[in-house]
Amino acid sequence: MPLSSEQIAEIEAERAHTRATLRAVSEGMEKHLYTAHPVLDHGFVRVVDYMGDDAAICQAARVSYGKGTKSVQNDAGLIRYLMRHWHSTPFEMCEIKLHVKLPVFVARQWIRHRTANVNEYSARYSIMDREFYIPQPDALAAQSVVNNQGRGEALSGEEAERVLRWLREDCTRAYDHYEAMISQDGQQGLARELARMNLPANIYTQWYWKTDLHNLLHFLRLRADAHAQYEIRVYAEAMCKIVADWVPQTWAAFEDYRLGGAALSRSGLACIRRMIAGETVTEENCGMSKGEWREFRAMLDEA
Amino acid sequence: MPLSSEQIAEIEAERAHTRATLRAVSEGMEKHLYTAHPVLDHGFVRVVDYMGDDAAICQAARVSYGKGTKSVQNDAGLIRYLMRHWHSTPFEMCEIKLHVKLPVFVARQWIRHRTANVNEYSARYSIMDREFYIPQPDALAAQSVVNNQGRGEALSGEEAERVLRWLREDCTRAYDHYEAMISQDGQQGLARELARMNLPANIYTQWYWKTDLHNLLHFLRLRADAHAQYEIRVYAEAMCKIVADWVPQTWAAFEDYRLGGAALSRSGLACIRRMIAGETVTEENCGMSKGEWREFRAMLDEA
Amino acid sequence: MPLSSEQIAEIEAERAHTRATLRAVSEGMEKHLYTAHPVLDHGFVRVVDYMGDDAAICQAARVSYGKGTKSVQNDAGLIRYLMRHWHSTPFEMCEIKLHVKLPVFVARQWIRHRTANVNEYSARYSIMDREFYIPQPDALAAQSVVNNQGRGEALSGEEAERVLRWLREDCTRAYDHYEAMISQDGQQGLARELARMNLPANIYTQWYWKTDLHNLLHFLRLRADAHAQYEIRVYAEAMCKIVADWVPQTWAAFEDYRLGGAALSRSGLACIRRMIAGETVTEENCGMSKGEWREFRAMLDEA
Amino acid sequence: MPLSSEQIAEIEAERAHTRATLRAVSEGMEKHLYTAHPVLDHGFVRVVDYMGDDAAICQAARVSYGKGTKSVQNDAGLIRYLMRHWHSTPFEMCEIKLHVKLPVFVARQWIRHRTANVNEYSARYSIMDREFYIPQPDALAAQSVVNNQGRGEALSGEEAERVLRWLREDCTRAYDHYEAMISQDGQQGLARELARMNLPANIYTQWYWKTDLHNLLHFLRLRADAHAQYEIRVYAEAMCKIVADWVPQTWAAFEDYRLGGAALSRSGLACIRRMIAGETVTEENCGMSKGEWREFRAMLDEA
Repeated sequence: MPLSSEQIAEIEAERAHTRATLRAVSEGMEKHLYTAHPVLDHGFVRVVDYMGDDAAICQAARVSYGKGTKSVQNDAGLIRYLMRHWHSTPFEMCEIKLHVKLPVFVARQWIRHRTANVNEYSARYSIMDREFYIPQPDALAAQSVVNNQGRGEALSGEEAERVLRWLREDCTRAYDHYEAMISQDGQQGLARELARMNLPANIYTQWYWKTDLHNLLHFLRLRADAHAQYEIRVYAEAMCKIVADWVPQTWAAFEDYRLGGAALSRSGLACIRRMIAGETVTEENCGMSKGEWREFRAMLDEA
Repeated sequence: MPLSSEQIAEIEAERAHTRATLRAVSEGMEKHLYTAHPVLDHGFVRVVDYMGDDAAICQAARVSYGKGTKSVQNDAGLIRYLMRHWHSTPFEMCEIKLHVKLPVFVARQWIRHRTANVNEYSARYSIMDREFYIPQPDALAAQSVVNNQGRGEALSGEEAERVLRWLREDCTRAYDHYEAMISQDGQQGLARELARMNLPANIYTQWYWKTDLHNLLHFLRLRADAHAQYEIRVYAEAMCKIVADWVPQTWAAFEDYRLGGAALSRSGLACIRRMIAGETVTEENCGMSKGEWREFRAMLDEA
Repeated sequence: MPLSSEQIAEIEAERAHTRATLRAVSEGMEKHLYTAHPVLDHGFVRVVDYMGDDAAICQAARVSYGKGTKSVQNDAGLIRYLMRHWHSTPFEMCEIKLHVKLPVFVARQWIRHRTANVNEYSARYSIMDREFYIPQPDALAAQSVVNNQGRGEALSGEEAERVLRWLREDCTRAYDHYEAMISQDGQQGLARELARMNLPANIYTQWYWKTDLHNLLHFLRLRADAHAQYEIRVYAEAMCKIVADWVPQTWAAFEDYRLGGAALSRSGLACIRRMIAGETVTEENCGMSKGEWREFRAMLDEA
Repeated sequence: MPLSSEQIAEIEAERAHTRATLRAVSEGMEKHLYTAHPVLDHGFVRVVDYMGDDAAICQAARVSYGKGTKSVQNDAGLIRYLMRHWHSTPFEMCEIKLHVKLPVFVARQWIRHRTANVNEYSARYSIMDREFYIPQPDALAAQSVVNNQGRGEALSGEEAERVLRWLREDCTRAYDHYEAMISQDGQQGLARELARMNLPANIYTQWYWKTDLHNLLHFLRLRADAHAQYEIRVYAEAMCKIVADWVPQTWAAFEDYRLGGAALSRSGLACIRRMIAGETVTEENCGMSKGEWREFRAMLDEA
């Protein structure tokens, strides 16, 4: 269970206390505030704070004195225009602050997105909790045979059982020893900053993570993608739902121009012109490498 | 007059409309929201939005589930500790969004602080307003004779009058020609993106500027400093007052550890040890260059 | 003339002095070093230093101990793969340092690219040179009638003459007064940091600008684009030639996947599928807005 | 042994091949290029490339056409001035690229310095090596009893032996299972991106890390400090030696103004003034908290 009753009480206390503000408020986002959306077996994503809404993007784009809204329809058109033409600065005018609990190996991927503010739980000061990510059977995938970086089918039978047993046993033993090493009961007790080195990468950590909407969308484009590792993708998917409620017009434009769109190379564009003109373009006459052609065909064929 | 009655009406409309939120609210900041604090002859600083308060800094430092406040006294101590030990990440968890109107030559200094989001009024799309910064007589300073980068006393008499007359006449003429060049009345009309090149650096521009509290404090330390150019310092001073109301505990720690403090070099520290031990340290035996010694003495002598 | 004979001598002195190094060397780049490539009437771009080459990108991508090159062909394939899949970190491993002389209104656009290091000539310390950008007749364009942000045809006849006369006269007078104001001949002399405010935005400034290859390519994609303002585009075009000599394999991949490519929206992709299937897609049945459809058709029609 | 004979051969091949360049060369740095400086039991730091030298900093500060050097003495004075007045942009004009091998728990601290370019060895694509950090007996420290974040004395006797045995056994077993899980010998083989989660934080990873001199010095100030964790401090110390050879004038100024200096608070400065005036200042009358007073006394007492 990801949250203790004490933690749930703290969250409920926050949610019970409405305050008055003059700032822009996103009704869709207020309902998410503080609630822990569960991800994986012990993780979660919680919105701790946010700044701005769809109208605030338009207000900034127009450098206006008041709300900046002419009309909802007008705003939607402006947001689509900004998204289509890669005018990113107005989207940077919205900000989000999340509390995330996640396995260390996911945190190591996540942190590579540098344009964000981060405050992580310190394993130098504090004692880590005994919580580890153990994949569900259908997420226990084999190495892909076509893609060095990807996954194939789920493991089955004895192999699956053996892997799960090792994962469970090794983290249990590692944590038992971690606890025994830092114990000051009848011994000096190893420094926490050293003892943590015995803990495996599936242990959960947590952090406060704050970023602007432009960088968040960039994160989601890469991490909610089918090629992202499953364990970070589920966090990205939870965040997609939050963004859709927070800034619905921006989300709609993002879905159309980014998530649902595609990048064409010069060669790809040339092939499309030939295909529209009725020519039959094949791997042999396309002028692309084998890998590019495969990706190009997949893009055209996707439903 | 910096704001038109229409702009004032827009601002008042924003201030009239209170909304309910579950987020952290800073009462001290709410009273600043949207109000245009005048700076220089036509400029201003307005808070458009903010995220977080003193408690939010502690909440992030503790990576806590609820408010993170143990007690106000406790929080103040934690904030002082974080400031003293240069733990900057919790301060990055607060964010501010300002609407600023400022002369172009001030904007050019300001923009050098890169860790911020900016949306500037576009002189490619839009027509610039006829508003120019003309210094007050006491700000019309001579070049410093001791510091290549500084100012000396105010100009006086005919020289002052001549300078003011040139500043006024040149910007008036430049703007008249700007207007005449872009006019489409009986002519093609020069592109705005070209015509703007005729405008001098004392014309006012405006932007939305958003940054986190850590970077804001860094900006204020440099720009509210006595060595900063007067015309950017007055903006920094207006922002200092806003920050003091927004996050009073952080502001108190910042005043003690940064604004009112000093950086000692190894040589300076050695001199202080000798002086405390009763030795007479002079420019000759201090081991510093002439300039360093002058700055060192000034630091010790300041009230 | 952009450079004085003294400046040319300094540059030639640098170019005359070959040194031995163990670092990666790009032969194509060595020939550019220090040479001032003229841009506009008084501006230039000079390569002051660089780090890395195509092989260094592969070396970083493979985190290798030696050169990282398997074969030239192998490297070209890896670079194309990295570019196609938006793996940007290996491209960040190359760095360039430029000395650029450019009009202030161009510098104001340029500086918005934040991920770069900049050292600008200081008008607080130093006296600005009397050099201003005056457009060539064919660059003296009217405001576009279809695009609020763009240019139309060149001005002609008396209107063109009048504009050029104003541009020339206004900057001459502004500079005369600038000089007279800072003069300490028989008067106190206005502080330089104040006097500069009288100078128009077509005055030339200069800076050292340093960035990594990934961010440079992003800059070039936006600023070498047909929609960029002409006066910054010519700088971008000069830099494109430099990059093509510096990292030829990266440049080829960049041309194919970025400059010559296109971004499709979900709606655009759907239309292409229908068109390939033989359907007639029109503005009426495309499901896009008028502006999107125009841009979509332009993309398909470009030679 | 940190490097295989094949890796040493690759490094020697790089070092054997001198090339001609027109760029600035730092003789002190050339001797470090590619050589792996050992750190901890299996780690190292290697300079892969660098840009600039002391003269390049002055050249940028002066935005000069040639070398920018007036004289070596002149340059040293300028560099001291820039360092003393926190003018950081000229130091950003130098760049370094390192290849570092380091334990994962050190990498997790290191990566928090965001202004850097990083390419890490991918455990999604590749198989991790069987190399783990095991502390030397004198680095096997107990938790500090005065500082929640620090270390006390070294563990001794049976406790030390037990800790070392657990560290060794747990990583050996974890790696055995990692290997067995990804094996495709008679089984499907778990995806590498999943199997890595079983590996503890003392396993070694490696990356290419590139940053500018200003940010590097900031990193060194924090991480070469006595309060930094020992395991990252030894990396910082190895880098300090490299920087001292690369840019000796900058290093000397950095030692004087940063490493050997101190930051005084307003209260600390007030105490110093009183102490110089002959007053006896104690914990009781100093106006500081207990912790601040302890740190203040330590600063004054350090040799």
